[in-house]
Amino acid sequence: MALYCEGNGDSRSVRIVVPFKFNGAKSRLAPALKPEERRLLALAMTRDVLRTVSEFGTVTVLSRPGLYAEDIEIAGDVFEILESDLDLNDALNELIEDEARRGWQKDVLIVMADLALLAKNDIVGILNCPGDVILSPGRGGGTNMILINSPVFRTCYRGLSFPKHLAFAREAGLEATVFESFRASSDIDQPEDLVELLLHGRGEARALLEQMGFFLSDEVRAMTSPNAPIMLGHGPADSRIRM
Amino acid sequence: MALYCEGNGDSRSVRIVVPFKFNGAKSRLAPALKPEERRLLALAMTRDVLRTVSEFGTVTVLSRPGLYAEDIEIAGDVFEILESDLDLNDALNELIEDEARRGWQKDVLIVMADLALLAKNDIVGILNCPGDVILSPGRGGGTNMILINSPVFRTCYRGLSFPKHLAFAREAGLEATVFESFRASSDIDQPEDLVELLLHGRGEARALLEQMGFFLSDEVRAMTSPNAPIMLGHGPADSRIRM
Repeated sequence: MALYCEGNGDSRSVRIVVPFKFNGAKSRLAPALKPEERRLLALAMTRDVLRTVSEFGTVTVLSRPGLYAEDIEIAGDVFEILESDLDLNDALNELIEDEARRGWQKDVLIVMADLALLAKNDIVGILNCPGDVILSPGRGGGTNMILINSPVFRTCYRGLSFPKHLAFAREAGLEATVFESFRASSDIDQPEDLVELLLHGRGEARALLEQMGFFLSDEVRAMTSPNAPIMLGHGPADSRIRM
Repeated sequence: MALYCEGNGDSRSVRIVVPFKFNGAKSRLAPALKPEERRLLALAMTRDVLRTVSEFGTVTVLSRPGLYAEDIEIAGDVFEILESDLDLNDALNELIEDEARRGWQKDVLIVMADLALLAKNDIVGILNCPGDVILSPGRGGGTNMILINSPVFRTCYRGLSFPKHLAFAREAGLEATVFESFRASSDIDQPEDLVELLLHGRGEARALLEQMGFFLSDEVRAMTSPNAPIMLGHGPADSRIRM
């Protein structure tokens, strides 16, 4: 049984790693957005995440080759880009192993690039949880943030990663803590997640989505599936819900 | 702009109202569960919610006619059932108006019956937020809990209720606070939500789902839609993920 933590207290400096999926970015948003719109939204979300995390440590954006520094520049801050041809999981574990070889000078905080709702409180929260590894679940069994305080931990970002990360920690004899957060659990991945972004977003990604013509509506049920009607309009309409 | 609150501190006694939808309970789970399974799951989730909230105040279960006291009995505790032929929103507002006519002796906390992941910390959290009305958002624009501290507030449970509740408070000159929680935001409504219940549930509803033969799996992708593949198996299989 993992510990649960609400994360109040002071925080410490860490190495923050933000994995950005450049090729085929956000392909599950295809029913709602064109490829260029998806790319712009993915970059805007990444910049929102970078704005949220940057004060808490050094930041590395992990990407396949092709990401330009100017794409993720915010207010003049250029972040380190680490290019890797490996898949997400192998690239992360290579980075963890590098840190271990160098004597584990800093703990490693992984923060997914599509957490467009993430708030600074969430980073303070996870940094103040005890344990060898702190896992923050995403919707559907994902793991949206991991704070790694032990060089023994490895990521398992394939399929249902959250239970796999818990199981890895248990089998390795590591103390795992769970940090639960509404905003940290809300990765923007599917068309219905755009509703969350319009409802709860506070940054550039929400503004971009509004510029693209999306709005909340009770009447227009666009891009809907029978099990997941989403309340999202696109283009001019009289049915906008004012926030 | 609403206030945001993390809800730490002491809590006070309130009148807790748990609306239970008896007729056609959980119809959006139809792709995954038979009608009788849906009814049993809805009742198990309601009992989980009642176990979570009962120590924090007097509890009224609001239902259309047909709910039996023994269906929601837990450990000998029988809860007050208030039957109403009105729809959810009108029934809630009638109850609020009754409380106002009686001099608003207690603040009213509305907690949805399908919050099977809800923890006592969530109730402590919302009870300690300041404001005339405290709103806890659900996924997709819903409002999963409302703490009403003012007789002026009325619910707007139709369509995208969360922005409507914020707008109502603003127009009525009430101070609205937002209480965000991973567990309070996770209503169990669609087949993919069953994954959340298996991953994060701690009560009777999770146990029931496991008894029905559901398990987490990377390989079996049952009851899936192209935009929302869910990792849920049903029946015997070798691909279970151990938690």
